[in-house]
Amino acid sequence: MSKVELLEEHRIFDGVQYKYRHTSEVLGCPMTFSLFLPNKDRFPEPPLLWWLSGLTCTDDNFTHKAGAQRAAARLGIAMIMPDTSPRGEEIADSKDYDLGQGAGFYLNATEEPWAAHYKMYDYIIEELTSLMRDEFDLNGPEFISGHSMGGHGALVLGLKNPERFQSITAFAPIVNPSQVPWGVKAFENYLGDDKSRWAEWDALELLKQQSGKIVPILIDQGDADPFYKKELEPAKLAEAAKERDYPLTVRMQKGHDHSYYTISTYIEEHLEFHLNESKKDRGIQK
Amino acid sequence: MSKVELLEEHRIFDGVQYKYRHTSEVLGCPMTFSLFLPNKDRFPEPPLLWWLSGLTCTDDNFTHKAGAQRAAARLGIAMIMPDTSPRGEEIADSKDYDLGQGAGFYLNATEEPWAAHYKMYDYIIEELTSLMRDEFDLNGPEFISGHSMGGHGALVLGLKNPERFQSITAFAPIVNPSQVPWGVKAFENYLGDDKSRWAEWDALELLKQQSGKIVPILIDQGDADPFYKKELEPAKLAEAAKERDYPLTVRMQKGHDHSYYTISTYIEEHLEFHLNESKKDRGIQK
Repeated sequence: MSKVELLEEHRIFDGVQYKYRHTSEVLGCPMTFSLFLPNKDRFPEPPLLWWLSGLTCTDDNFTHKAGAQRAAARLGIAMIMPDTSPRGEEIADSKDYDLGQGAGFYLNATEEPWAAHYKMYDYIIEELTSLMRDEFDLNGPEFISGHSMGGHGALVLGLKNPERFQSITAFAPIVNPSQVPWGVKAFENYLGDDKSRWAEWDALELLKQQSGKIVPILIDQGDADPFYKKELEPAKLAEAAKERDYPLTVRMQKGHDHSYYTISTYIEEHLEFHLNESKKDRGIQK
Repeated sequence: MSKVELLEEHRIFDGVQYKYRHTSEVLGCPMTFSLFLPNKDRFPEPPLLWWLSGLTCTDDNFTHKAGAQRAAARLGIAMIMPDTSPRGEEIADSKDYDLGQGAGFYLNATEEPWAAHYKMYDYIIEELTSLMRDEFDLNGPEFISGHSMGGHGALVLGLKNPERFQSITAFAPIVNPSQVPWGVKAFENYLGDDKSRWAEWDALELLKQQSGKIVPILIDQGDADPFYKKELEPAKLAEAAKERDYPLTVRMQKGHDHSYYTISTYIEEHLEFHLNESKKDRGIQK
């Protein structure tokens, strides 16, 4: 019996947009995810882009609003959109939009009441990955991208798994969560007060210590984004990259804000970046 | 003092997506609308596309989901997205999704309790039109398009105002509302039982009697649309067009359903159709 239940299926451009439900053993609850597949005949073994969404989002936001399917259908890229946290009445939550359900921060929580279910890292890197391979036969190159909290997720998951992800892109990512309000609140709750345990979930710290296969990074940041200075500041990551000659590009986008309007404007360039980078061999980071 | 209040402003591609609120005198309530403007320097006098949405929609659905801004920015087309009915606690409503708020059917209601506020035809053709001209200086060619109930709206408003709209397109329109469940329910409530008064709001009847300037029509209809046979059936309109040699094209789109995924796939071709048709002179219908 299949491990996934089909909820929606829609033709879009030369591909199909699916939405599925499955029961996650890692998270201990039912979860939905969305999956775009390009035309099977033209692209029998497509690469897979992992898209990680931001605070308050589900798997629907990117799927409905980014318009990425047009470029993905043309370029032959599959896209998996996970939800952003475990969900359900039995699952710990808070009244705040930036903690609990919709705010899983793509890590494995160690503190109660979160530790029982908030294992988004393992969910994506292990369980959902196995599903993609076993149920959907997606065994090609993998890319990772995301927005805001999901940009943090893309950077952290990508940098922690350099052998697996060929390239990373992000829109307005939280690059140094240990030092900004959104990240400090999440890490204090999910990981506890011992800040030495925060570094492995902080892109800036990971980049400083990165070794092994080089995973190039592209970041777009709108200069009209109200969270730019307080929560994001990708220049900090760019400086760390420059110091060790790491291939990272931050593009400041004039007049653009934190919304999906910005993502829809540049997502095609991100997909092209991933596809182009997957054809290069950038070697090993010392 | 400006008649409109700016609620949102987002850079997207080479243009700006706005959302406004204003107080409608015609509808007797506050209304929101969304407006996309292409780059002013490149397109100082853009044509204006009116987009009419379907049942349950607001001005947000097309704005968020259709991805039309990319093509509109490239082609230099402004787009106005009105809401689909008057709104508010003081406004008549029903518990049904297909009657009352979110289901204005782009007509002027004559029956109570609807007649007091449900004047979407006059709202769009007069009040919102004046706003576009006076507040936003949009005095160029005009096109009209829409989806489902909004496809009905585009056909009816376009055919009733052939001197004004250069071209009409629609996705899965209700072409003969007098004869299908959605339309009969709306017309009985808004217009009353005298069916002789329904014809002026029925695209099929309007097309049969059409005279004056020829307004070419393009319709896309998915063959996997669950409402195709029961509510839509654009072939009826195509037959009436053929009988009098009216320029109407219905394209059946394989595998496509009633969703915005279909609209996002073909909206660029609709914008190109409008722009190309506005350069032709098709003459006068006898």
